Amino acid sequence: MSCKTVLSKEISSSFREELKATIKSRGIKPKLVGFLANQDPSAVKYAESTSKTCEETGVVFELRKCNREELEDQIVEANEDDNIHGIMVYYPVFGDHVEGLCHKYIYNMYHNVRFLDREETKKCIIPCTPLAIVKVLEFIGVYNPVLPYGNRLHGRVITIINRSEIVGRPLAALLANDGGKVFSVDINSIQEFHRGTGLKLKKHEVRDTNLKLEEIVPISDVVITGVPTPSYKLPTALLRDGVIVINFSAFKNFEDNVREKASIYVPAVGKVTIAMLERNLLRLFDYKSQD
Amino acid sequence: MSCKTVLSKEISSSFREELKATIKSRGIKPKLVGFLANQDPSAVKYAESTSKTCEETGVVFELRKCNREELEDQIVEANEDDNIHGIMVYYPVFGDHVEGLCHKYIYNMYHNVRFLDREETKKCIIPCTPLAIVKVLEFIGVYNPVLPYGNRLHGRVITIINRSEIVGRPLAALLANDGGKVFSVDINSIQEFHRGTGLKLKKHEVRDTNLKLEEIVPISDVVITGVPTPSYKLPTALLRDGVIVINFSAFKNFEDNVREKASIYVPAVGKVTIAMLERNLLRLFDYKSQD
Repeated sequence: MSCKTVLSKEISSSFREELKATIKSRGIKPKLVGFLANQDPSAVKYAESTSKTCEETGVVFELRKCNREELEDQIVEANEDDNIHGIMVYYPVFGDHVEGLCHKYIYNMYHNVRFLDREETKKCIIPCTPLAIVKVLEFIGVYNPVLPYGNRLHGRVITIINRSEIVGRPLAALLANDGGKVFSVDINSIQEFHRGTGLKLKKHEVRDTNLKLEEIVPISDVVITGVPTPSYKLPTALLRDGVIVINFSAFKNFEDNVREKASIYVPAVGKVTIAMLERNLLRLFDYKSQD
Repeated sequence: MSCKTVLSKEISSSFREELKATIKSRGIKPKLVGFLANQDPSAVKYAESTSKTCEETGVVFELRKCNREELEDQIVEANEDDNIHGIMVYYPVFGDHVEGLCHKYIYNMYHNVRFLDREETKKCIIPCTPLAIVKVLEFIGVYNPVLPYGNRLHGRVITIINRSEIVGRPLAALLANDGGKVFSVDINSIQEFHRGTGLKLKKHEVRDTNLKLEEIVPISDVVITGVPTPSYKLPTALLRDGVIVINFSAFKNFEDNVREKASIYVPAVGKVTIAMLERNLLRLFDYKSQD
């Protein structure tokens, strides 16, 4: 079998080591508070892995459980506490609504604004899972480092099957802002995110396409899935030979024979997500101390 | 303009520096003899650049001019001279025939045999221009170093417009052996070179395809041209947005607007070819001294 399986543990390890070394050498105690306002087994599991990884790397993690009605007040309170450097909320809380991401960062992400300051010293915070997938794509050679920063996906065609507000849509925007041509698929429609021929646009634009899944998957260099049901399987027959496939769903969205066709298979990204969570926390710690 | 132009000087410089340092530190005098049996201006120019680069890097270069009728005897004589480590013949000599490459190396190249010995210490010699283009593709990120050696082009679709025996056909074989799906175009036909779905074959196979140039260019990640006429121009309109384009012809085979669509443009490979010539010479020097 020529397919190479790349595990998220391998991808995340250099980030984890770097975080650990930084926290130790600087003697700092960045603190993360996680709010759990549901009984969703995936959310509980995510909270447990967060706790474990934080302990390993030297981040103080505190899990606060509450009812969803109390959540807003609790967030406001934590936000005013100078000893807390980052807050995360385990989803879902109120179902399908857009939840919890800071408005300024959302705006900047969609508008391809990468820094908070004119001097470009403070990078914007990117949501953990989309950021983790960017790091996965860098690790496995989809970003071309020969191209200038910001254009390194030029020429890549990427399908993302998931357009949730917390992963699929921001991911499509990030990859299109980096120069990729992205097909964003949800149950209702397929949209195309891109910066135009020759990347003539500064930020991506979005348009509906009449192309069907059966037409876009065979022309995609990379296919990323995040369908939250055990029954969904993308047919291997649709994939281009040598495709790169990445799954971020808790369920396997590819068929068992996907490795007969793919060149690289990343079955999960969870460990990279937690490394990015801590990396974001460290940035927030620094921005707070510079205020 | 988002396209990045990569010059062969930049690609070859690290190879040249390495060659220079090796030759100096080992105190060796590898000697290359070039035979010029024609008045072709490109051949004369190539001989001149060889001479210049050899001088810079510490290779002894001797140009021997002769009539084409004398050439065979002269090659045999040079081949028996222990002070000569490499021989090259400037083409063309007898027109379109297969000329001058050592049979064993040709066989090994087409059969994906990469070493001369079982212990895999002696790499086979690859013809300079195809090898130079492999190095160009490595430099600009087309080979994916995450994949195992020998499979690093898996998933890449590459069109080569030239199927000469000295560049286009061996190049198609090399890239297909490395896992790529290669369309090899000449004036009469288009052939497909590849190792099958999931790279199930150990070496490439070749088949004719009914696909037309207008169908293969738009699905190619990389387009490599080597058409030896000033009038040939590949229409930019056919190219995929973000394509990587490489020209090894002495004439510009792409239209002036190619940079509006390509992500990377390599206008020439000559300097890399000469670096590979010297690299091959150094291997031959070592193999000779190990005999």
